[in-house]
Amino acid sequence: MDIEKAIEVVKFELNQSRFEHTLRVMETSEKLAERFHVPVEKAKLAAALHDYAKNWPADRLKTYIQNHLPSELLEYHVELWHGPVAADIMEKQFHVTDMEVLQAIRHHTTGRAKMTKVEMVVYLADYIEPGRSFPGLEEVRNASEKNLEYACWLTAKKTLQYLIGRNSIIHPDSIHAYNDLTGFVKAEGMLNE
Amino acid sequence: MDIEKAIEVVKFELNQSRFEHTLRVMETSEKLAERFHVPVEKAKLAAALHDYAKNWPADRLKTYIQNHLPSELLEYHVELWHGPVAADIMEKQFHVTDMEVLQAIRHHTTGRAKMTKVEMVVYLADYIEPGRSFPGLEEVRNASEKNLEYACWLTAKKTLQYLIGRNSIIHPDSIHAYNDLTGFVKAEGMLNE
Repeated sequence: MDIEKAIEVVKFELNQSRFEHTLRVMETSEKLAERFHVPVEKAKLAAALHDYAKNWPADRLKTYIQNHLPSELLEYHVELWHGPVAADIMEKQFHVTDMEVLQAIRHHTTGRAKMTKVEMVVYLADYIEPGRSFPGLEEVRNASEKNLEYACWLTAKKTLQYLIGRNSIIHPDSIHAYNDLTGFVKAEGMLNE
Repeated sequence: MDIEKAIEVVKFELNQSRFEHTLRVMETSEKLAERFHVPVEKAKLAAALHDYAKNWPADRLKTYIQNHLPSELLEYHVELWHGPVAADIMEKQFHVTDMEVLQAIRHHTTGRAKMTKVEMVVYLADYIEPGRSFPGLEEVRNASEKNLEYACWLTAKKTLQYLIGRNSIIHPDSIHAYNDLTGFVKAEGMLNE
């Protein structure tokens, strides 16, 4: 799928504010991909498609998951359903074949262990795009100027802290992302201990 | 193994301050077990034995794990090694057969999903025994007067917050404990949301 077609497809599925968020994630992904030598077209395409199913009602997501995906996903928060659904639809109905693009769509909310750089770019861009505003975000934006993995580690850490502070149930992939990136930034000597 | 024998066995393995901690965990476990109608002798025995391997040097724990336990454990922090080692030794060398006692020893540091009440008592007692002092502990002690699961949920939540704040890698069982207990306290209507 080319990028113009992707934009057309998601514009049809998303409300205006979500579509504008998508455009900002695309722009941010493009900048991050250029900065960190990640395939730009893959990052932009994944960013364009990442929220394809975000405006679906929970019932529609649930039915799709019951018919097409491991139903274990339904044990976790509804916010975690749209990524795997979008990736599955892109693969099966729109014939997107690039695994890096599909994985970046699938895991953009939780992250996971051993993310590819395309996944990291979309995961990070979704967190820092210019429409976002919350305490601690500037630290991540500053980190995103310098090091992709460190910025993703901060994202994973702050996401966990936010979710636990809200008494939310945590998807294992969120912990795997945090553990994996913690191991990386420690091994690289990026943490003062 | 009876309780007198257990105390004799661990006294030989532990330094003075760790032994005194063990006695306090036993006393606290006894009170919690009586309060929440949990088998008192099982809770006391597991409490007596829970830190059996705590004063072992890391090298000795590592060698034991390499020879007797899934080596995946070595990927996690050294603080998480002594519980599984102690449980394995109690089972194989001291012929403790009670699975509730063994599981309470094994999982006392991380917790896990679907803890038995004996496990919960030792997990909680280890966190709140009177020798402990850190911010937020009084909230857990107060909760432990009223509800075992809620107090364990608070323990799991605060432990995760502490570990993530320190940039520690998280054992999956710590998340499973938190998720499981979060599901329980939500289902019981114990959280205001």
